[in-house]
Amino acid sequence: MITLYELTGADVARRFSPYCWRIRMSLRHKGLPFEGIAWRFTEKDRLAPAGSQFVPVLRDGDTWVHDSMAIAEYLEATYPDRPGLFGSPHGAALARFVAAWTDRTVQLNASRPILMDIFSCLHPGDRDYFRTTREKRFGKRLEEVCPDPQAELPSFRLLLEPARRVFGKQAYLAGEAPNYADYALYGTFMWWRMTSRLPPFEREDIMSSWLARMDEACDGEGRRALAAAGMQPEG
Amino acid sequence: MITLYELTGADVARRFSPYCWRIRMSLRHKGLPFEGIAWRFTEKDRLAPAGSQFVPVLRDGDTWVHDSMAIAEYLEATYPDRPGLFGSPHGAALARFVAAWTDRTVQLNASRPILMDIFSCLHPGDRDYFRTTREKRFGKRLEEVCPDPQAELPSFRLLLEPARRVFGKQAYLAGEAPNYADYALYGTFMWWRMTSRLPPFEREDIMSSWLARMDEACDGEGRRALAAAGMQPEG
Repeated sequence: MITLYELTGADVARRFSPYCWRIRMSLRHKGLPFEGIAWRFTEKDRLAPAGSQFVPVLRDGDTWVHDSMAIAEYLEATYPDRPGLFGSPHGAALARFVAAWTDRTVQLNASRPILMDIFSCLHPGDRDYFRTTREKRFGKRLEEVCPDPQAELPSFRLLLEPARRVFGKQAYLAGEAPNYADYALYGTFMWWRMTSRLPPFEREDIMSSWLARMDEACDGEGRRALAAAGMQPEG
Repeated sequence: MITLYELTGADVARRFSPYCWRIRMSLRHKGLPFEGIAWRFTEKDRLAPAGSQFVPVLRDGDTWVHDSMAIAEYLEATYPDRPGLFGSPHGAALARFVAAWTDRTVQLNASRPILMDIFSCLHPGDRDYFRTTREKRFGKRLEEVCPDPQAELPSFRLLLEPARRVFGKQAYLAGEAPNYADYALYGTFMWWRMTSRLPPFEREDIMSSWLARMDEACDGEGRRALAAAGMQPEG
């Protein structure tokens, strides 16, 4: 049995880590049964067997793997008869680029407008940890990082232009069906919508259409998870 | 015989359009013989048969194709027995994303520091056209767009972070060998180095290693073109 350690808030239905979502979707994509285990920021000792301080951590029998890209590659190599996450070696190389772009561009800038929403949904025992690490990262008090989230949305949305362009021509980043490249970007918006009610996109934005399609991917995994957390996407 | 219309400066050896370079590399990649024809901004009438005002324009017998991505797709569909530009349908979808990212992020921001260098290498007959169209685009006089190019390099270089990340793990964006995704990004740096002596990257930057590898791709096409234009890359 595969076990996936997933970051949660005070409500364990709020699985909000963008990197854990990449793996949750990947496991569904490959049709591999697994158990998702709720984990909190401060429970570092539970990840010790993986040699990691952060999730996602995956346990498959006696094998522990950490880091989302390493886990995706492990799953692909270990279960080659299941549906592929990358399509081809070229596809894997380029999916790595999409993941890096998401990390460095989208993820980094998305964290500002939803920062206080994330803080609010944390388990009380995680709040000091989150405040200390994030205040160090941003160099200011949490409350001062983004005093007007609404005002930052236009510049954030502009960062998605490269994705928007391709969605004029294809349904998914990976083409006609989603794969790891789409899950990498989707993770950011599961993180966003699991913690915040601020709409990441305007309704008529082509990004909203992609997000709605992604919510239905893998038997509606994302849609059902948002509903279970009481964070229903707009219809 | 295939003909490729390519933008040149006063010196016809300075083929500097980033989009034409995507196609020149693609034709070499596929091993298709072609003739590159020098074209200047103001020679719109010569492109009329393609229904376009801009290069690249490709003529293959009686077929005219314009727009770099459309031309790459045309070559792939028309010459399927030649080496593939995309590797797979997933690879094609993701290469489209890399091209869109290059267009919207890299290309847009690279144009500021090298703007006056481009202007200087134009044929005198193209200068008014360039000045008028670019001053309209930037909303100010050419000379005022980037008074201190050197000062803008650090922020420009930062935009390449997603690419830098993957080059820690793989030689090319497309993995072990370059394909259209790499040519899309490479075009920007041929444009840059055909017109400017400003180094796009610091020598120890991992991007410089990729660029040096790309200069040797397709039998050193880029290296030889730079040498012919007197714009030798640093050794």
